Amino acid sequence: MPTNKEIAAFEAGIKLGVLYHQFVGSPVSSKTADSLERAIKESISLQPYVRSVDVRIDRRMLVENAFGYGELEGRMIFAEVEIDYRGETVRARLEYDPDKNYPLMKLI
Amino acid sequence: MPTNKEIAAFEAGIKLGVLYHQFVGSPVSSKTADSLERAIKESISLQPYVRSVDVRIDRRMLVENAFGYGELEGRMIFAEVEIDYRGETVRARLEYDPDKNYPLMKLI
Amino acid sequence: MPTNKEIAAFEAGIKLGVLYHQFVGSPVSSKTADSLERAIKESISLQPYVRSVDVRIDRRMLVENAFGYGELEGRMIFAEVEIDYRGETVRARLEYDPDKNYPLMKLI
Amino acid sequence: MPTNKEIAAFEAGIKLGVLYHQFVGSPVSSKTADSLERAIKESISLQPYVRSVDVRIDRRMLVENAFGYGELEGRMIFAEVEIDYRGETVRARLEYDPDKNYPLMKLI
Repeated sequence: MPTNKEIAAFEAGIKLGVLYHQFVGSPVSSKTADSLERAIKESISLQPYVRSVDVRIDRRMLVENAFGYGELEGRMIFAEVEIDYRGETVRARLEYDPDKNYPLMKLI
Repeated sequence: MPTNKEIAAFEAGIKLGVLYHQFVGSPVSSKTADSLERAIKESISLQPYVRSVDVRIDRRMLVENAFGYGELEGRMIFAEVEIDYRGETVRARLEYDPDKNYPLMKLI
Repeated sequence: MPTNKEIAAFEAGIKLGVLYHQFVGSPVSSKTADSLERAIKESISLQPYVRSVDVRIDRRMLVENAFGYGELEGRMIFAEVEIDYRGETVRARLEYDPDKNYPLMKLI
Repeated sequence: MPTNKEIAAFEAGIKLGVLYHQFVGSPVSSKTADSLERAIKESISLQPYVRSVDVRIDRRMLVENAFGYGELEGRMIFAEVEIDYRGETVRARLEYDPDKNYPLMKLI
């Protein structure tokens, strides 16, 4: 039987996986990053056991193509979720790791 | 050589295909439908040759699961895009067709 | 500091979240379910700490539209992942729960 | 009223938009590119009015992260679709344009 803490960790992983693979690829620019951040935050907030979500798109990483916009990439996203499963809480973060060149997800 | 009108029609198809497959599956509820609509609208507006985009999520079709939210499904979306390619304009619509039980995309 | 077991649970959650939100929405029919299952399985197998992945699409739930195909929905997917994080293993499952009408993810 | 040729062009646009935004972001490596290509090809083949689909993932562009895999990016994809709408056929292509640094979709 998993502990409540393990279940909370599992739920945190789900949220970051969903956040990433639902929204990566969305057309985005510095003008629309606000509305995309907000939609991601509200969308993930709906999921079970979520106490809070923070989502920020790094505007400095937005690369514009010839048409003046780009696509949301995983490495542009900073996100934190706090999960509360039956009183056990965990926090997890998605953040670009420049050393690994990888959008790393971890429990914090 | 395709005509400018055919290219405009092609571009309209791209936009509806993107809109649908980027955002369908997003967690959504009646409380968050506003921010999701807005993010979709702004995101698609960035793409080449888009003159206008209208996106509405049919709140009556939002089905809540045991956790109080649902997922965006294609049949919940009404969307219209207007494309202008070198002066030739086309309009296209995504709308649920209850007879076909299909989220139909068409030039209008 | 999270335990290795908690990290393994977190990683399991990520994999199921990714699997679900990357592939739900894909056009699929009874003829193409095999190749989609295989692609999902191989894709998720690449992710860190995955020891095994099983993915099955429930053919009985495939609903064909007027054009003879459907879309992959979460409730059609049965998936199990086994994670090994530094010797600690966990198993997690995605399976449709008819009572909750929800594609439930859980540690098993 | 749109012409059949314009409708065929519209349908071609939909297919490329779907292909791109459904599958970009999938974990992929040189070992799994085959199964992903096949799943994409079969999935898009199901859609209305598709006569043929060709999909190739450029293995040379696959960038492996610290964990030995990467994610499918739009610029890695070469795709062609042939649409037949009531006897009118069009062909469209998705191909990376290095000058624009953009995965360009066009009628050919």
